[in-house]
Amino acid sequence: MTSITKNFNAKSWITVDPNSDFPIQNIPFGIGQTEPNKPFVSTIIGDQVINVSALNAKGYLKGIDFDANVLDQPFLNDFISLGKSITNPIREAIASVFESSNSSLKDHAEDQQAILTPVDQVQLLLPVKVGDYTDFYSSKQHAYNVGCMFRDPENAIMPNWVHLPVGYHGRASSIIVSGTPIHRPCGQQIPADSTQPVYGPCRLLDFELEMGYIIGKSTQLGDRLSTEEAEDHVFGFTLFNDWSARDIQKWEYVPLGPFLGKSFASTISPWIVTIEALENFRLEGPVQEPEVLPYLQYKGAKRFDVRLEVAIQPDGQDPFNVTRSNYKYMYWNYAQQIAHHTVNGCNINVGDMYASGTISGDTPDSYGSMLELSWKGTKPIHLPDGSERKFIADGDTVILQGFGIHEGVRIGFGEVSNKVLPAK
Amino acid sequence: MTSITKNFNAKSWITVDPNSDFPIQNIPFGIGQTEPNKPFVSTIIGDQVINVSALNAKGYLKGIDFDANVLDQPFLNDFISLGKSITNPIREAIASVFESSNSSLKDHAEDQQAILTPVDQVQLLLPVKVGDYTDFYSSKQHAYNVGCMFRDPENAIMPNWVHLPVGYHGRASSIIVSGTPIHRPCGQQIPADSTQPVYGPCRLLDFELEMGYIIGKSTQLGDRLSTEEAEDHVFGFTLFNDWSARDIQKWEYVPLGPFLGKSFASTISPWIVTIEALENFRLEGPVQEPEVLPYLQYKGAKRFDVRLEVAIQPDGQDPFNVTRSNYKYMYWNYAQQIAHHTVNGCNINVGDMYASGTISGDTPDSYGSMLELSWKGTKPIHLPDGSERKFIADGDTVILQGFGIHEGVRIGFGEVSNKVLPAK
Repeated sequence: MTSITKNFNAKSWITVDPNSDFPIQNIPFGIGQTEPNKPFVSTIIGDQVINVSALNAKGYLKGIDFDANVLDQPFLNDFISLGKSITNPIREAIASVFESSNSSLKDHAEDQQAILTPVDQVQLLLPVKVGDYTDFYSSKQHAYNVGCMFRDPENAIMPNWVHLPVGYHGRASSIIVSGTPIHRPCGQQIPADSTQPVYGPCRLLDFELEMGYIIGKSTQLGDRLSTEEAEDHVFGFTLFNDWSARDIQKWEYVPLGPFLGKSFASTISPWIVTIEALENFRLEGPVQEPEVLPYLQYKGAKRFDVRLEVAIQPDGQDPFNVTRSNYKYMYWNYAQQIAHHTVNGCNINVGDMYASGTISGDTPDSYGSMLELSWKGTKPIHLPDGSERKFIADGDTVILQGFGIHEGVRIGFGEVSNKVLPAK
Repeated sequence: MTSITKNFNAKSWITVDPNSDFPIQNIPFGIGQTEPNKPFVSTIIGDQVINVSALNAKGYLKGIDFDANVLDQPFLNDFISLGKSITNPIREAIASVFESSNSSLKDHAEDQQAILTPVDQVQLLLPVKVGDYTDFYSSKQHAYNVGCMFRDPENAIMPNWVHLPVGYHGRASSIIVSGTPIHRPCGQQIPADSTQPVYGPCRLLDFELEMGYIIGKSTQLGDRLSTEEAEDHVFGFTLFNDWSARDIQKWEYVPLGPFLGKSFASTISPWIVTIEALENFRLEGPVQEPEVLPYLQYKGAKRFDVRLEVAIQPDGQDPFNVTRSNYKYMYWNYAQQIAHHTVNGCNINVGDMYASGTISGDTPDSYGSMLELSWKGTKPIHLPDGSERKFIADGDTVILQGFGIHEGVRIGFGEVSNKVLPAK
């Protein structure tokens, strides 16, 4: 069978707007529901959410042998655990059903009613139950910017940074899906020129523009994965906003790292775009100098040309773009991150999430956080309504978007959008 | 009904050695199995493991209304989720069945066969599925010792340390149960006087003597718990060895905290001792100066007088005690830790685990890690076989024990014991 998802010319009988993230070549996975407590594995073409459970129940996925119960779970974990030898054929079979020349479902209005729902009538849920979440710090420009601001430009990059993908364990429980409003967090901060901390709502609330990926294959404690083996353990990618309370973080993080400055919320996109859908966006490099240790060396193109954007939408206003970055601005790639993460024998599980760290390009309009865009608040961003932003204000909605375009086919993630409410 | 577990004079018809951690007043919870894939909720009296699922099936827990399926799960999470209004009566009902004057099971040999198994014939499994794991750093002597070694005695305690319980997110996937051998981890280290890291087996493998506790009641994202409310969210306590690779940690941990130096393994005891079983071991204090912010203030006795010991057992030798500490050496208590953890709205879930950080007493023979006991390797510990230890050697078994004694009743945790195998 020819792959529909790999055919640039393939079209769906579902109308797909040219600016849609979801042509028939994408077929990402998520969890939707149209009534309470009835979650189903979903995908999307154009603006139509496809109930994969119903599609299977109606006989459109015949010939692929798997336990259909995985399609009615509140998370994708069991589906992902089927393995790529099952999930990839399911993805291709779905594309085939919706390919323009296939009339089986196209001509069956009754089945369509059970299977298709406009996206604005579906509640998209958190797609995975994240076991462990690790956040890396793998964009060199971001590390350099932060180093310049908090140390000095001469020693901006720490000595260990060029030798290993620096990362830390994050909080999994507070990972939420796009659309969930968040309250400004409270916590301890240290006023300038004071030694006595105060308690109150965070003043320096920030986004961090990141990409995440979801582990698709587990290992046992003691196993080490090479950069080559790591490839097979990635199910797919998400957009990720690693919300940060800069003032809380600054006071708490020495010596054990970020904690409450991050753990109040982190947002992922509702759709996990498979690594297979991103094949055409792979890029080589960058050159890593000094040379990395053998276990971190790799072959092939492990970065992705995915355009990333962030907009701030003040209450009642239009969204205003504040940065354009790209997933290609990664010094350490996912294969290196996984090889490093497991080099000590740490086991990884299906549903674990890894985030890139803030992705900043090499120009000031491509930085991935307000901390960098406003350069610690010294260069406020001016919005069309006349207001300015050093950090995020109550009532602002922060919107992340990401997509690649290859041969006219746009593969995207949908948006990550959250409104910030005042502190409780 | 009089509480058996609160009666110092209560005895079981099961023989309990005076040095046993498990008198009828303890009734901790764990997961056991005697054949593959048949886990059951367990408790223990003396050296007899009680199959709580079988006990219930045979009708000995009549009158308590709950879903019996929770007793046949591979983890305690569903059992714990029943809530204390169910699990506490179950605990009392179990104690009642085994109280010396109760002949119902005592005189029923056939039921006993289904319910009781000698502990050495039961495989004790990881008792909880840990969602998120947080490690604190709450012993002041430990923070001081580390500060002296890596900074200077004048500034040993960081400014934030006295204002908040410093902590970091740890890796949940690699939490294992006592008895599981661990391999010495590999990773990057930086040789003295070099700027070029090397890769290889960790040379400075260490234990950290800690206590952990398990969350018994969840919160929603955005909820804050007061120190008073926190009390109700603790199910019980465990012994915990936070294995540490000091050389890996030293090179990686600035600026984002401990990562691979910890994530290769952490060990908990198979038994979770309920907070109710520790009531008699509560202690007031310590005085916290400077005064803490209002959200960290608390009333009542929130520390526990639990004696803690660590022994090293070289291959083929007897265990040799290397330290005696106590859970009372905590500056920040569990109620403060939980109040702090949730002050930003971070949600907590049943099965989450919180660890104390290394617990060091105020004398050099009560420190909670080899790093401190050998003072960075400058004061090796001499073992009876003539060898010495600065850190842990391959073939060593590290054994943690913990118990309190009140009115002649010893409440303990069983041991946390793991053998260190050579690097893979």
